[in-house]
Amino acid sequence: MSAMAEPGSLAPSGAPDPDLPGIRTAVERTLDDFLDGKARDAERDDMPPEVIGTLRDFVLRGGKRLRPLLCACGWYAAGGTGDPTAVVRVGAALELFHAFALVHDDLMDRSATRRGRPAVHRALADRYRSTRDHATAERLGVGSAILLGDLACVWSCELLHTAPLTPRQFSALLPVVHAMRTEVMYGQYLDLLATGEPTADVRGPLRVARYKTATYTCERPLHAGAALAGGPEAVLDACTAYALPLGEAFQLRDDLLGVFGDPRATGKSRLDDLREGKHTALVALALDQGDPGQRAELLRLVGDSELDERGAARVRALLTGTGARAGVEHMIRARRAQALHALCTAPFPPAVAAVLRDLADSLTERSA
Amino acid sequence: MSAMAEPGSLAPSGAPDPDLPGIRTAVERTLDDFLDGKARDAERDDMPPEVIGTLRDFVLRGGKRLRPLLCACGWYAAGGTGDPTAVVRVGAALELFHAFALVHDDLMDRSATRRGRPAVHRALADRYRSTRDHATAERLGVGSAILLGDLACVWSCELLHTAPLTPRQFSALLPVVHAMRTEVMYGQYLDLLATGEPTADVRGPLRVARYKTATYTCERPLHAGAALAGGPEAVLDACTAYALPLGEAFQLRDDLLGVFGDPRATGKSRLDDLREGKHTALVALALDQGDPGQRAELLRLVGDSELDERGAARVRALLTGTGARAGVEHMIRARRAQALHALCTAPFPPAVAAVLRDLADSLTERSA
Repeated sequence: MSAMAEPGSLAPSGAPDPDLPGIRTAVERTLDDFLDGKARDAERDDMPPEVIGTLRDFVLRGGKRLRPLLCACGWYAAGGTGDPTAVVRVGAALELFHAFALVHDDLMDRSATRRGRPAVHRALADRYRSTRDHATAERLGVGSAILLGDLACVWSCELLHTAPLTPRQFSALLPVVHAMRTEVMYGQYLDLLATGEPTADVRGPLRVARYKTATYTCERPLHAGAALAGGPEAVLDACTAYALPLGEAFQLRDDLLGVFGDPRATGKSRLDDLREGKHTALVALALDQGDPGQRAELLRLVGDSELDERGAARVRALLTGTGARAGVEHMIRARRAQALHALCTAPFPPAVAAVLRDLADSLTERSA
Repeated sequence: MSAMAEPGSLAPSGAPDPDLPGIRTAVERTLDDFLDGKARDAERDDMPPEVIGTLRDFVLRGGKRLRPLLCACGWYAAGGTGDPTAVVRVGAALELFHAFALVHDDLMDRSATRRGRPAVHRALADRYRSTRDHATAERLGVGSAILLGDLACVWSCELLHTAPLTPRQFSALLPVVHAMRTEVMYGQYLDLLATGEPTADVRGPLRVARYKTATYTCERPLHAGAALAGGPEAVLDACTAYALPLGEAFQLRDDLLGVFGDPRATGKSRLDDLREGKHTALVALALDQGDPGQRAELLRLVGDSELDERGAARVRALLTGTGARAGVEHMIRARRAQALHALCTAPFPPAVAAVLRDLADSLTERSA
């Protein structure tokens, strides 16, 4: 079956409204079916069921599905209409790739929780603890989380390459996917190097946000969808103009939520980033704008692996008192405005521009 | 350019002899060029050079290139002739995938050396030690080795998908590649679980060898090459009949070398497997054949993370004294004979069968 979209075959006014809830449901069903097949394969081959079980649980139990939704938006933006099977499957592949990135990210950051539950390496270590000693269970937790992430990575390739795409669609899609994968890895590496070494220079964290979030989370998924619909250069450029500031704003919101958010809503600890010494724009601004006493106190507290809730409250007071928190809110507003402005001149069907406007609001104003 | 092989277009007697040294050189040049491009990309984007530098160094400084060579053999076996560009590029992708698997394997096994030099996570940790404290350097070593492995994985996909293949070749190749990637991950997982838990049942280690080595290292690379040449079922079956016993024999030799080998030749410590408590057929046989005293001593020494050269010498004496070492040598000979026997009836050009015969000898009799 060819699911090639037919750009321009309908006038914008005749194009159907983007059905993002329908896309989300279809993406989740695709992931469920695909991982169900992998579970059956594991059973057939008498493989231990916990790897696929833990991965399924992680992928299906939560997540914003942001990359698949933006992929679908890119497809609609470029005039994609008709059967969305291909764009759904490519979106599902992006989501599975993201599961891989998160599993390894939590391992590198030593984060204990994700989506309100134990991170994958913790869940696996807990499972082994019933039959192995503590040190062995910890070692197995790390090793099996590396492998589970690796499986998610290679399976995301399989999902992508079993999508019903024409050779022309593959040719347009693959350079986008290859660039995206490299960018997020380098973004993660820059993030890893900067962790524990905060400075007053906000350009460092913004560069990390660019690679880790702006291109990986926003621009490339839009481009992937647009590529499937055969979108011309002008559509890709408009996607970029919208996605890059939005992605930075999204990351800046994430940084605020990592420190000021409600863990019941975010599903993540709000001590992890501070204990790990994550170098965010928020911390950079506080170091830049604080007086010498505030700076010294921040440098002492941020990156203290034993930081408790009282110490974290003190950091929050410093981040607010130096004006850094308000400064980051200002940066978010400026970037959201830039993204919305880009939509004014974007050659997208009006209904798609409207959906992207709503997305810009919900992604930058979110509490989870 | 289409590099589709033309099976059957030349009678076997007219087919050129397989040029494995030429293939090896071409694979290494392909890897060099590809990684050179990645290094230039990193420089252009002002990325830290150590990730790509360490990966290049690791990929280009050694390795048997076994998977690319078997991939080429599969191509020749299925009657592949003419321009080998496609099979070389696919082989290079297999080699880069293998680099990814090794980097994560050394991390999970906590192996300090590989190919006679520090393992990637050790090399990176050593590099960070000049500017960071010990604990941070160790953490960065682990995190950056995870990311470097991940990059090698996604770049191996990129190498594969930029190979000059026809849609028909891709369709034939991808199921082989997808199966191979899943199998090796599960093999690694079974290996991880069994480590530190040796038993007298040889079936466990042989099952690990099947997934980790027999299919991943031998059968699938041969199938990948045969698929590129449009090889029929009979050729694929003959590849399997040759590859599975050969792969098991290769792994059994690896187990022996891991304990009895010369580290100057293997490039690996001969204490790592014993300290880690690697569950090999060698250890299983010794536990099965030893008397109660020998069993107890083996179980005490194998898996002792502090094992020294004197303890290792004692383990070697036990492995020899119980007859396990001779038993594994016998298993290797039986499997090599089975692989050679499969070649007698294989529908391969005679020159290809001759090359595969030589390979079976060198892979099972090797000292490195």
